[in-house]
Amino acid sequence: MTAKSKVGCYPFLAEPFHCDLTGRLFIGHLGNHLLNAADFHSNDRGFGMNYLNPIHKTWVLSRLAIEMEELPAMYTRFQVETWVENAMRFFTQRNFKIMGMAGTSGLSDVDSQTAPSGEEAPKVYGYGRSVWAMIDTDTRQPADLLAIHDGAIMDYVEVDKPCPILKSSRVKMSEGAQRVRTIDTFYSDVDINGHINSVKYIEHILDLWEAEWHRVHAVHRFEIAYVAESHQGDRLTFYREQTDEKEFCVRITKTESASDVENEVVRSKVSFF
Amino acid sequence: MTAKSKVGCYPFLAEPFHCDLTGRLFIGHLGNHLLNAADFHSNDRGFGMNYLNPIHKTWVLSRLAIEMEELPAMYTRFQVETWVENAMRFFTQRNFKIMGMAGTSGLSDVDSQTAPSGEEAPKVYGYGRSVWAMIDTDTRQPADLLAIHDGAIMDYVEVDKPCPILKSSRVKMSEGAQRVRTIDTFYSDVDINGHINSVKYIEHILDLWEAEWHRVHAVHRFEIAYVAESHQGDRLTFYREQTDEKEFCVRITKTESASDVENEVVRSKVSFF
Repeated sequence: MTAKSKVGCYPFLAEPFHCDLTGRLFIGHLGNHLLNAADFHSNDRGFGMNYLNPIHKTWVLSRLAIEMEELPAMYTRFQVETWVENAMRFFTQRNFKIMGMAGTSGLSDVDSQTAPSGEEAPKVYGYGRSVWAMIDTDTRQPADLLAIHDGAIMDYVEVDKPCPILKSSRVKMSEGAQRVRTIDTFYSDVDINGHINSVKYIEHILDLWEAEWHRVHAVHRFEIAYVAESHQGDRLTFYREQTDEKEFCVRITKTESASDVENEVVRSKVSFF
Repeated sequence: MTAKSKVGCYPFLAEPFHCDLTGRLFIGHLGNHLLNAADFHSNDRGFGMNYLNPIHKTWVLSRLAIEMEELPAMYTRFQVETWVENAMRFFTQRNFKIMGMAGTSGLSDVDSQTAPSGEEAPKVYGYGRSVWAMIDTDTRQPADLLAIHDGAIMDYVEVDKPCPILKSSRVKMSEGAQRVRTIDTFYSDVDINGHINSVKYIEHILDLWEAEWHRVHAVHRFEIAYVAESHQGDRLTFYREQTDEKEFCVRITKTESASDVENEVVRSKVSFF
Protein backbone atom coordinates (compact mmCIF):
# COMPACT_ATOMS: atom_id res chain seq x y z
CA MET A 1 0.00 0.00 0.00
CA THR A 2 1.00 3.60 0.33
CA ALA A 3 3.51 5.35 2.53
CA LYS A 4 1.38 8.49 2.90
CA SER A 5 -2.13 8.68 4.29
CA LYS A 6 -4.90 9.21 1.78
CA VAL A 7 -6.06 12.44 3.38
CA GLY A 8 -3.61 15.35 3.57
CA CYS A 9 -4.06 18.16 6.07
CA TYR A 10 -2.44 21.61 5.73
CA PRO A 11 -2.52 24.62 8.06
CA PHE A 12 -3.28 28.15 6.88
CA LEU A 13 -3.74 31.59 8.41
CA ALA A 14 -6.42 34.13 7.48
CA GLU A 15 -3.87 36.88 6.86
CA PRO A 16 -5.02 40.47 7.42
CA PHE A 17 -4.60 41.61 3.82
CA HIS A 18 -6.44 38.51 2.63
CA CYS A 19 -9.58 39.54 4.52
CA ASP A 20 -12.43 41.61 3.16
CA LEU A 21 -14.22 44.59 4.67
CA THR A 22 -16.15 42.27 7.01
CA GLY A 23 -12.87 40.91 8.41
CA ARG A 24 -13.42 37.47 6.82
CA LEU A 25 -11.15 35.66 4.37
CA PHE A 26 -11.86 36.53 0.71
CA ILE A 27 -13.23 33.54 -1.23
CA GLY A 28 -10.46 34.05 -3.80
CA HIS A 29 -7.76 33.61 -1.17
CA LEU A 30 -9.59 30.60 0.28
CA GLY A 31 -9.67 29.17 -3.25
CA ASN A 32 -5.91 29.74 -3.48
CA HIS A 33 -5.40 27.86 -0.21
CA LEU A 34 -7.47 24.93 -1.55
CA LEU A 35 -5.38 24.84 -4.73
CA ASN A 36 -2.20 24.91 -2.62
CA ALA A 37 -3.49 22.06 -0.47
CA ALA A 38 -4.21 20.08 -3.65
CA ASP A 39 -0.72 20.85 -4.92
CA PHE A 40 1.02 19.85 -1.66
CA HIS A 41 -1.06 16.65 -1.39
CA SER A 42 -0.35 15.51 -4.95
CA ASN A 43 3.35 16.47 -4.84
CA ASP A 44 3.80 14.55 -1.59
CA ARG A 45 2.28 11.47 -3.21
CA GLY A 46 4.21 11.49 -6.48
CA PHE A 47 1.56 12.77 -8.88
CA GLY A 48 1.97 16.54 -8.42
CA MET A 49 3.32 19.26 -10.69
CA ASN A 50 6.88 18.57 -9.51
CA TYR A 51 6.75 15.14 -11.10
CA LEU A 52 4.42 15.98 -14.00
CA ASN A 53 5.99 19.13 -15.41
CA PRO A 54 9.33 17.52 -16.35
CA ILE A 55 7.41 14.79 -18.23
CA HIS A 56 5.35 17.45 -20.07
CA LYS A 57 2.10 16.92 -18.24
CA THR A 58 0.10 19.20 -15.98
CA TRP A 59 -3.08 19.28 -13.94
CA VAL A 60 -5.78 21.63 -15.16
CA LEU A 61 -8.54 22.73 -12.81
CA SER A 62 -11.86 22.15 -14.51
CA ARG A 63 -14.41 22.89 -11.76
CA LEU A 64 -14.36 24.17 -8.21
CA ALA A 65 -17.25 24.43 -5.75
CA ILE A 66 -16.88 25.89 -2.27
CA GLU A 67 -19.73 25.85 0.24
CA MET A 68 -19.17 27.63 3.53
CA GLU A 69 -21.20 27.98 6.69
CA GLU A 70 -18.82 30.73 7.73
CA LEU A 71 -15.51 32.12 6.48
CA PRO A 72 -12.48 32.21 8.78
CA ALA A 73 -12.07 35.56 10.54
CA MET A 74 -8.88 37.61 10.33
CA TYR A 75 -5.91 35.98 12.12
CA THR A 76 -7.71 32.63 12.46
CA ARG A 77 -5.51 29.61 11.95
CA PHE A 78 -7.43 26.92 10.10
CA GLN A 79 -6.68 23.74 8.24
CA VAL A 80 -7.66 22.23 4.94
CA GLU A 81 -8.03 18.49 4.54
CA THR A 82 -7.95 17.21 0.99
CA TRP A 83 -8.38 13.81 -0.62
CA VAL A 84 -9.11 12.21 -3.98
CA GLU A 85 -12.67 10.93 -4.14
CA ASN A 86 -12.26 9.14 -7.42
CA ALA A 87 -10.05 8.98 -10.47
CA MET A 88 -11.00 8.09 -14.01
CA ARG A 89 -8.83 8.12 -17.07
CA PHE A 90 -9.19 11.80 -17.86
CA PHE A 91 -10.66 13.35 -14.73
CA THR A 92 -10.19 13.15 -11.01
CA GLN A 93 -12.42 14.49 -8.26
CA ARG A 94 -10.74 16.00 -5.25
CA ASN A 95 -12.56 17.14 -2.11
CA PHE A 96 -11.72 19.59 0.66
CA LYS A 97 -12.83 20.11 4.24
CA ILE A 98 -12.10 23.51 5.78
CA MET A 99 -11.93 23.34 9.56
CA GLY A 100 -10.55 25.01 12.67
CA MET A 101 -7.58 23.72 14.59
CA ALA A 102 -8.28 20.82 16.98
CA GLY A 103 -9.44 22.02 20.38
CA THR A 104 -9.88 25.63 19.38
CA SER A 105 -13.49 25.75 18.15
CA GLY A 106 -12.21 28.06 15.46
CA LEU A 107 -11.25 30.82 17.87
CA SER A 108 -10.07 33.80 15.89
CA ASP A 109 -7.08 34.29 18.09
CA VAL A 110 -3.60 34.35 16.71
CA ASP A 111 -2.52 32.23 19.68
CA SER A 112 -5.29 29.67 19.26
CA GLN A 113 -2.79 27.06 18.12
CA THR A 114 -1.40 26.98 21.62
CA ALA A 115 -4.76 26.81 23.38
CA PRO A 116 -5.20 23.72 25.55
CA SER A 117 -6.51 20.94 23.38
CA GLY A 118 -9.93 19.79 24.53
CA GLU A 119 -11.90 16.80 23.37
CA GLU A 120 -14.27 18.83 21.22
CA ALA A 121 -14.13 18.36 17.47
CA PRO A 122 -12.72 21.30 15.51
CA LYS A 123 -15.23 23.68 14.01
CA VAL A 124 -16.12 22.96 10.39
CA TYR A 125 -16.22 26.08 8.19
CA GLY A 126 -17.23 24.31 5.01
CA TYR A 127 -16.30 21.99 2.18
CA GLY A 128 -15.05 22.08 -1.36
CA ARG A 129 -15.24 19.88 -4.42
CA SER A 130 -13.04 20.08 -7.49
CA VAL A 131 -12.60 18.33 -10.81
CA TRP A 132 -9.20 18.17 -12.50
CA ALA A 133 -8.02 16.96 -15.89
CA MET A 134 -4.49 16.04 -16.83
CA ILE A 135 -3.16 17.40 -20.10
CA ASP A 136 -0.05 17.01 -22.18
CA THR A 137 1.69 20.41 -22.13
CA ASP A 138 3.03 19.98 -25.68
CA THR A 139 -0.23 19.06 -27.39
CA ARG A 140 -2.65 20.62 -24.81
CA GLN A 141 -4.66 17.40 -25.26
CA PRO A 142 -6.05 15.27 -22.40
CA ALA A 143 -3.56 12.79 -20.96
CA ASP A 144 -4.30 9.49 -19.26
CA LEU A 145 -3.81 10.15 -15.56
CA LEU A 146 -3.99 6.44 -14.76
CA ALA A 147 -0.79 5.95 -16.76
CA ILE A 148 1.20 7.99 -14.21
CA HIS A 149 3.29 5.66 -12.01
CA ASP A 150 1.15 2.72 -13.15
CA GLY A 151 -2.01 4.28 -11.77
CA ALA A 152 -0.51 5.20 -8.39
CA ILE A 153 -3.28 7.74 -7.85
CA MET A 154 -5.71 4.82 -7.35
CA ASP A 155 -3.85 3.90 -4.16
CA TYR A 156 -4.98 7.21 -2.70
CA VAL A 157 -8.66 7.16 -3.61
CA GLU A 158 -10.68 7.67 -0.44
CA VAL A 159 -14.34 6.82 -0.86
CA ASP A 160 -15.51 6.73 2.75
CA LYS A 161 -14.78 10.27 3.89
CA PRO A 162 -17.93 12.38 3.63
CA CYS A 163 -18.11 15.62 1.68
CA PRO A 164 -21.70 16.70 2.38
CA ILE A 165 -22.11 19.33 -0.35
CA LEU A 166 -23.59 18.98 -3.81
CA LYS A 167 -21.34 18.34 -6.77
CA SER A 168 -21.04 21.11 -9.32
CA SER A 169 -23.72 21.03 -11.93
CA ARG A 170 -23.89 22.67 -15.32
CA VAL A 171 -24.69 26.35 -14.82
CA LYS A 172 -27.66 27.14 -17.04
CA MET A 173 -28.17 30.67 -18.25
CA SER A 174 -31.00 32.08 -20.33
CA GLU A 175 -31.11 34.82 -22.93
CA GLY A 176 -32.12 37.11 -20.07
CA ALA A 177 -28.60 37.35 -18.66
CA GLN A 178 -27.47 40.99 -18.51
CA ARG A 179 -24.12 42.19 -19.75
CA VAL A 180 -22.86 43.87 -16.58
CA ARG A 181 -19.16 44.67 -17.04
CA THR A 182 -16.21 44.49 -19.42
CA ILE A 183 -12.67 44.64 -18.08
CA ASP A 184 -9.17 44.59 -19.49
CA THR A 185 -6.70 42.00 -18.20
CA PHE A 186 -3.22 42.87 -17.04
CA TYR A 187 0.11 41.44 -15.90
CA SER A 188 -1.21 40.65 -12.38
CA ASP A 189 -4.00 38.52 -13.84
CA VAL A 190 -1.77 35.91 -15.45
CA ASP A 191 -0.03 32.85 -14.08
CA ILE A 192 3.22 31.20 -15.05
CA ASN A 193 1.57 29.74 -18.16
CA GLY A 194 0.45 33.16 -19.34
CA HIS A 195 -3.20 32.26 -18.70
CA ILE A 196 -5.61 34.28 -16.60
CA ASN A 197 -5.17 32.71 -13.18
CA SER A 198 -8.01 30.64 -11.73
CA VAL A 199 -8.12 32.70 -8.54
CA LYS A 200 -8.31 36.05 -10.38
CA TYR A 201 -11.52 34.95 -12.11
CA ILE A 202 -13.02 34.37 -8.65
CA GLU A 203 -12.03 37.91 -7.59
CA HIS A 204 -13.40 39.45 -10.77
CA ILE A 205 -16.72 37.61 -10.39
CA LEU A 206 -17.20 38.68 -6.76
CA ASP A 207 -16.29 42.24 -7.78
CA LEU A 208 -19.58 42.35 -9.71
CA TRP A 209 -21.26 43.10 -6.36
CA GLU A 210 -20.64 46.34 -4.51
CA ALA A 211 -18.71 46.35 -1.25
CA GLU A 212 -21.95 47.28 0.52
CA TRP A 213 -23.68 44.13 -0.78
CA HIS A 214 -20.80 42.02 0.56
CA ARG A 215 -20.97 43.80 3.90
CA VAL A 216 -24.46 42.33 4.39
CA HIS A 217 -24.34 39.12 2.35
CA ALA A 218 -21.62 36.55 2.93
CA VAL A 219 -21.02 34.02 0.18
CA HIS A 220 -22.65 30.68 0.98
CA ARG A 221 -21.73 28.69 -2.13
CA PHE A 222 -19.40 29.58 -4.99
CA GLU A 223 -19.16 27.39 -8.08
CA ILE A 224 -16.94 27.94 -11.09
CA ALA A 225 -16.33 25.96 -14.26
CA TYR A 226 -13.29 26.77 -16.38
CA VAL A 227 -14.34 26.30 -20.00
CA ALA A 228 -11.42 27.75 -21.96
CA GLU A 229 -8.18 29.66 -21.39
CA SER A 230 -7.71 33.39 -21.76
CA HIS A 231 -4.55 35.47 -21.93
CA GLN A 232 -3.24 38.87 -20.83
CA GLY A 233 -4.75 41.52 -23.06
CA ASP A 234 -7.99 39.64 -23.66
CA ARG A 235 -11.04 41.67 -22.68
CA LEU A 236 -13.39 39.84 -20.32
CA THR A 237 -17.13 40.48 -20.45
CA PHE A 238 -19.38 39.46 -17.59
CA TYR A 239 -23.04 38.43 -17.99
CA ARG A 240 -25.13 37.98 -14.88
CA GLU A 241 -28.58 36.51 -14.27
CA GLN A 242 -30.44 36.33 -10.99
CA THR A 243 -31.86 32.82 -10.57
CA ASP A 244 -33.21 33.00 -7.04
CA GLU A 245 -33.52 35.56 -4.26
CA LYS A 246 -29.82 35.38 -3.40
CA GLU A 247 -28.52 33.20 -6.24
CA PHE A 248 -26.87 34.44 -9.40
CA CYS A 249 -25.29 32.82 -12.45
CA VAL A 250 -22.38 34.46 -14.23
CA ARG A 251 -20.88 33.82 -17.66
CA ILE A 252 -17.54 35.31 -18.71
CA THR A 253 -16.49 35.64 -22.31
CA LYS A 254 -13.13 36.71 -23.69
CA THR A 255 -12.53 38.96 -26.68
CA GLU A 256 -9.00 38.75 -27.99
CA SER A 257 -7.34 41.96 -29.07
CA ALA A 258 -8.01 42.87 -32.68
CA SER A 259 -11.16 40.75 -32.62
CA ASP A 260 -14.85 41.28 -31.95
CA VAL A 261 -15.63 37.63 -31.36
CA GLU A 262 -16.65 36.65 -27.85
CA ASN A 263 -15.86 33.15 -26.64
CA GLU A 264 -17.03 31.72 -23.36
CA VAL A 265 -14.25 31.06 -20.84
CA VAL A 266 -15.99 30.64 -17.47
CA ARG A 267 -19.39 29.87 -15.95
CA SER A 268 -20.09 30.43 -12.31
CA LYS A 269 -22.94 30.35 -9.81
CA VAL A 270 -22.88 32.29 -6.56
CA SER A 271 -25.33 32.10 -3.69
CA PHE A 272 -25.25 34.41 -0.71
CA PHE A 273 -26.64 34.24 2.81
CA MET B 1 15.64 43.76 28.82
CA THR B 2 13.33 42.05 26.43
CA ALA B 3 12.08 38.51 26.25
CA LYS B 4 12.05 38.43 22.46
CA SER B 5 15.00 39.05 20.16
CA LYS B 6 15.04 42.37 18.32
CA VAL B 7 15.05 40.72 14.91
CA GLY B 8 12.12 38.50 13.95
CA CYS B 9 12.44 35.88 11.21
CA TYR B 10 9.47 34.34 9.40
CA PRO B 11 9.35 31.62 6.73
CA PHE B 12 7.33 31.96 3.51
CA LEU B 13 6.77 29.96 0.35
CA ALA B 14 6.63 31.35 -3.18
CA GLU B 15 3.24 29.75 -3.89
CA PRO B 16 2.46 28.84 -7.50
CA PHE B 17 -0.49 31.22 -7.89
CA HIS B 18 1.58 34.03 -6.38
CA CYS B 19 4.15 33.82 -9.17
CA ASP B 20 4.08 35.77 -12.40
CA LEU B 21 4.57 34.62 -15.97
CA THR B 22 8.34 34.37 -15.40
CA GLY B 23 7.78 31.96 -12.50
CA ARG B 24 8.96 34.51 -9.91
CA LEU B 25 7.03 35.86 -6.94
CA PHE B 26 4.90 38.92 -7.76
CA ILE B 27 6.18 42.06 -5.98
CA GLY B 28 2.67 42.59 -4.59
CA HIS B 29 2.71 39.19 -2.87
CA LEU B 30 6.24 39.83 -1.61
CA GLY B 31 4.97 43.14 -0.21
CA ASN B 32 2.17 41.23 1.52
CA HIS B 33 4.71 38.86 3.09
CA LEU B 34 6.73 41.85 4.37
CA LEU B 35 3.60 43.37 5.90
CA ASN B 36 2.77 40.02 7.51
CA ALA B 37 6.30 39.77 8.92
CA ALA B 38 5.91 43.29 10.36
CA ASP B 39 2.58 42.30 11.84
CA PHE B 40 3.87 39.06 13.40
CA HIS B 41 6.97 40.82 14.76
CA SER B 42 5.03 43.67 16.39
CA ASN B 43 2.26 41.40 17.72
CA ASP B 44 4.84 39.08 19.29
CA ARG B 45 6.43 42.08 21.03
CA GLY B 46 3.29 43.74 22.39
CA PHE B 47 2.92 46.65 20.00
CA GLY B 48 1.02 44.99 17.17
CA MET B 49 -2.54 45.34 15.90
CA ASN B 50 -3.77 42.75 18.42
CA TYR B 51 -2.86 45.11 21.24
CA LEU B 52 -3.52 48.40 19.45
CA ASN B 53 -6.93 47.83 17.92
CA PRO B 54 -8.78 47.34 21.23
CA ILE B 55 -7.26 50.63 22.47
CA HIS B 56 -8.39 52.41 19.28
CA LYS B 57 -4.98 52.77 17.68
CA THR B 58 -3.56 51.31 14.52
CA TRP B 59 -0.40 51.25 12.44
CA VAL B 60 -0.59 52.96 9.07
CA LEU B 61 1.96 52.16 6.40
CA SER B 62 3.39 55.40 5.08
CA ARG B 63 6.22 54.27 2.80
CA LEU B 64 7.60 51.00 1.50
CA ALA B 65 10.73 50.41 -0.57
CA ILE B 66 11.78 46.98 -1.82
CA GLU B 67 15.06 46.41 -3.64
CA MET B 68 15.71 42.95 -5.01
CA GLU B 69 18.66 41.32 -6.72
CA GLU B 70 16.36 38.48 -7.66
CA LEU B 71 12.82 37.40 -6.77
CA PRO B 72 12.20 33.96 -5.26
CA ALA B 73 11.24 31.37 -7.88
CA MET B 74 8.06 29.30 -7.68
CA TYR B 75 8.04 26.79 -4.78
CA THR B 76 11.09 28.41 -3.14
CA ARG B 77 10.96 28.57 0.62
CA PHE B 78 12.46 31.82 1.84
CA GLN B 79 12.53 33.85 5.01
CA VAL B 80 12.00 37.47 5.92
CA GLU B 81 13.92 39.06 8.77
CA THR B 82 12.44 42.26 10.14
CA TRP B 83 13.49 44.75 12.76
CA VAL B 84 12.81 48.31 13.91
CA GLU B 85 15.64 50.63 12.89
CA ASN B 86 14.36 53.59 14.85
CA ALA B 87 11.27 54.98 16.50
CA MET B 88 10.27 58.58 16.97
CA ARG B 89 7.10 59.94 18.44
CA PHE B 90 4.98 59.72 15.29
CA PHE B 91 6.97 57.49 12.95
CA THR B 92 8.94 54.30 13.07
CA GLN B 93 11.27 52.82 10.48
CA ARG B 94 11.19 49.08 9.98
CA ASN B 95 13.59 47.15 7.77
CA PHE B 96 13.44 43.78 6.04
CA LYS B 97 15.94 41.29 4.69
CA ILE B 98 14.64 38.69 2.25
CA MET B 99 16.82 35.60 2.17
CA GLY B 100 16.91 31.89 1.37
CA MET B 101 16.80 29.19 3.98
CA ALA B 102 20.13 28.41 5.69
CA GLY B 103 22.16 25.88 3.75
CA THR B 104 19.99 25.91 0.67
CA SER B 105 21.48 28.72 -1.44
CA GLY B 106 17.91 29.57 -2.33
CA LEU B 107 17.33 26.35 -4.26
CA SER B 108 13.91 26.53 -5.83
CA ASP B 109 13.04 23.03 -4.75
CA VAL B 110 10.04 22.34 -2.62
CA ASP B 111 12.18 19.96 -0.57
CA SER B 112 15.03 22.43 -0.11
CA GLN B 113 14.17 22.75 3.58
CA THR B 114 15.35 19.23 4.09
CA ALA B 115 18.57 19.62 2.08
CA PRO B 116 21.71 18.89 4.10
CA SER B 117 22.67 22.08 5.88
CA GLY B 118 26.10 23.32 4.79
CA GLU B 119 28.13 26.14 6.24
CA GLU B 120 27.37 28.57 3.46
CA ALA B 121 25.35 31.68 4.26
CA PRO B 122 21.82 31.75 2.88
CA LYS B 123 21.32 33.59 -0.38
CA VAL B 124 20.14 37.19 -0.01
CA TYR B 125 17.35 38.12 -2.41
CA GLY B 126 17.04 41.73 -1.32
CA TYR B 127 15.99 44.21 1.33
CA GLY B 128 13.09 46.40 2.24
CA ARG B 129 12.54 49.61 4.17
CA SER B 130 9.26 50.90 5.52
CA VAL B 131 7.94 53.87 7.47
CA TRP B 132 4.88 53.55 9.70
CA ALA B 133 2.78 56.03 11.62
CA MET B 134 0.46 55.25 14.48
CA ILE B 135 -2.98 56.83 14.39
CA ASP B 136 -5.97 57.02 16.66
CA THR B 137 -8.78 55.10 14.92
CA ASP B 138 -11.47 57.42 16.31
CA THR B 139 -9.93 60.74 15.30
CA ARG B 140 -7.69 59.45 12.43
CA GLN B 141 -5.03 61.77 13.92
CA PRO B 142 -1.41 60.79 14.64
CA ALA B 143 -0.89 59.05 17.97
CA ASP B 144 2.25 58.98 20.11
CA LEU B 145 3.77 55.56 19.54
CA LEU B 146 6.23 56.07 22.40
CA ALA B 147 3.28 56.17 24.81
CA ILE B 148 2.46 52.50 24.08
CA HIS B 149 3.59 50.31 27.01
CA ASP B 150 5.80 53.17 28.26
CA GLY B 151 7.80 53.24 25.05
CA ALA B 152 8.35 49.48 24.93
CA ILE B 153 9.14 49.72 21.22
CA MET B 154 12.47 51.41 22.13
CA ASP B 155 13.62 48.14 23.71
CA TYR B 156 13.50 46.60 20.25
CA VAL B 157 15.32 49.23 18.23
CA GLU B 158 18.18 47.55 16.39
CA VAL B 159 20.70 50.01 14.98
CA ASP B 160 23.58 47.71 14.10
CA LYS B 161 21.98 45.40 11.58
CA PRO B 162 22.76 46.61 8.06
CA CYS B 163 20.08 47.36 5.49
CA PRO B 164 22.21 48.31 2.48
CA ILE B 165 19.56 49.97 0.32
CA LEU B 166 18.66 53.63 0.01
CA LYS B 167 15.84 55.08 2.06
CA SER B 168 12.75 56.19 0.20
CA SER B 169 12.99 59.71 -1.09
CA ARG B 170 10.27 62.06 -2.22
CA VAL B 171 9.21 61.02 -5.72
CA LYS B 172 9.37 64.10 -7.92
CA MET B 173 7.19 64.34 -10.97
CA SER B 174 7.05 67.05 -13.59
CA GLU B 175 4.20 68.40 -15.68
CA GLY B 176 5.35 65.98 -18.35
CA ALA B 177 3.83 62.95 -16.63
CA GLN B 178 1.35 61.20 -18.92
CA ARG B 179 -2.11 60.14 -17.85
CA VAL B 180 -1.93 56.45 -18.72
CA ARG B 181 -4.94 54.70 -17.20
CA THR B 182 -8.10 55.18 -15.15
CA ILE B 183 -9.65 52.23 -13.32
CA ASP B 184 -12.65 51.60 -11.14
CA THR B 185 -12.15 50.04 -7.71
CA PHE B 186 -14.11 47.07 -6.48
CA TYR B 187 -14.83 44.85 -3.47
CA SER B 188 -11.54 42.90 -3.87
CA ASP B 189 -9.55 46.13 -3.65
CA VAL B 190 -10.56 47.05 -0.12
CA ASP B 191 -9.30 45.92 3.25
CA ILE B 192 -11.09 45.52 6.56
CA ASN B 193 -11.11 49.30 7.03
CA GLY B 194 -12.82 49.84 3.70
CA HIS B 195 -9.68 51.45 2.26
CA ILE B 196 -7.97 50.41 -0.95
CA ASN B 197 -5.46 47.86 0.30
CA SER B 198 -1.76 48.73 0.22
CA VAL B 199 -0.88 45.62 -1.76
CA LYS B 200 -3.54 46.24 -4.43
CA TYR B 201 -1.95 49.59 -5.28
CA ILE B 202 1.31 47.73 -5.96
CA GLU B 203 -0.50 45.35 -8.32
CA HIS B 204 -2.29 48.18 -10.12
CA ILE B 205 0.98 50.09 -10.59
CA LEU B 206 2.85 47.10 -12.01
CA ASP B 207 -0.14 46.43 -14.28
CA LEU B 208 0.77 49.64 -16.14
CA TRP B 209 3.39 47.58 -17.99
CA GLU B 210 2.42 44.83 -20.39
CA ALA B 211 3.08 41.21 -19.52
CA GLU B 212 5.67 41.15 -22.32
CA TRP B 213 7.64 43.98 -20.66
CA HIS B 214 7.66 42.04 -17.39
CA ARG B 215 8.81 38.90 -19.18
CA VAL B 216 12.04 40.71 -20.07
CA HIS B 217 12.45 43.24 -17.23
CA ALA B 218 12.37 42.11 -13.61
CA VAL B 219 11.68 44.77 -11.00
CA HIS B 220 14.88 45.91 -9.31
CA ARG B 221 13.51 48.53 -6.91
CA PHE B 222 9.93 49.40 -6.05
CA GLU B 223 9.08 52.42 -3.90
CA ILE B 224 5.65 53.56 -2.81
CA ALA B 225 4.42 56.40 -0.59
CA TYR B 226 0.85 56.31 0.67
CA VAL B 227 -0.35 59.91 0.72
CA ALA B 228 -4.08 59.59 1.40
CA GLU B 229 -6.76 56.93 1.69
CA SER B 230 -9.17 55.91 -1.04
CA HIS B 231 -12.34 53.83 -0.86
CA GLN B 232 -14.25 51.31 -2.95
CA GLY B 233 -15.97 53.11 -5.78
CA ASP B 234 -13.30 55.80 -6.11
CA ARG B 235 -11.83 55.98 -9.61
CA LEU B 236 -8.04 55.80 -9.68
CA THR B 237 -6.08 57.63 -12.36
CA PHE B 238 -2.46 56.76 -13.06
CA TYR B 239 0.14 59.24 -14.33
CA ARG B 240 3.52 57.93 -15.42
CA GLU B 241 6.79 59.63 -16.27
CA GLN B 242 9.97 57.96 -17.47
CA THR B 243 12.91 59.36 -15.48
CA ASP B 244 15.73 57.14 -16.69
CA GLU B 245 16.23 54.33 -19.18
CA LYS B 246 14.48 51.79 -16.95
CA GLU B 247 13.12 54.04 -14.20
CA PHE B 248 9.60 55.40 -13.98
CA CYS B 249 7.66 57.55 -11.51
CA VAL B 250 3.93 57.02 -11.01
CA ARG B 251 1.32 59.20 -9.36
CA ILE B 252 -2.16 57.92 -8.53
CA THR B 253 -5.10 60.21 -7.92
CA LYS B 254 -8.57 59.29 -6.74
CA THR B 255 -11.83 60.76 -7.97
CA GLU B 256 -14.72 60.08 -5.65
CA SER B 257 -18.05 59.16 -7.18
CA ALA B 258 -20.19 62.17 -8.02
CA SER B 259 -17.09 64.38 -8.15
CA ASP B 260 -14.63 65.54 -10.78
CA VAL B 261 -11.91 66.52 -8.33
CA GLU B 262 -8.72 64.48 -8.41
CA ASN B 263 -6.74 64.10 -5.19
CA GLU B 264 -3.35 62.45 -4.98
CA VAL B 265 -3.33 59.17 -3.03
CA VAL B 266 -0.05 57.47 -3.96
CA ARG B 267 3.39 58.19 -5.42
CA SER B 268 5.68 55.45 -6.58
CA LYS B 269 8.96 54.90 -8.35
CA VAL B 270 9.83 51.67 -10.16
CA SER B 271 13.16 50.67 -11.64
CA PHE B 272 13.64 47.55 -13.71
CA PHE B 273 16.65 45.44 -14.66
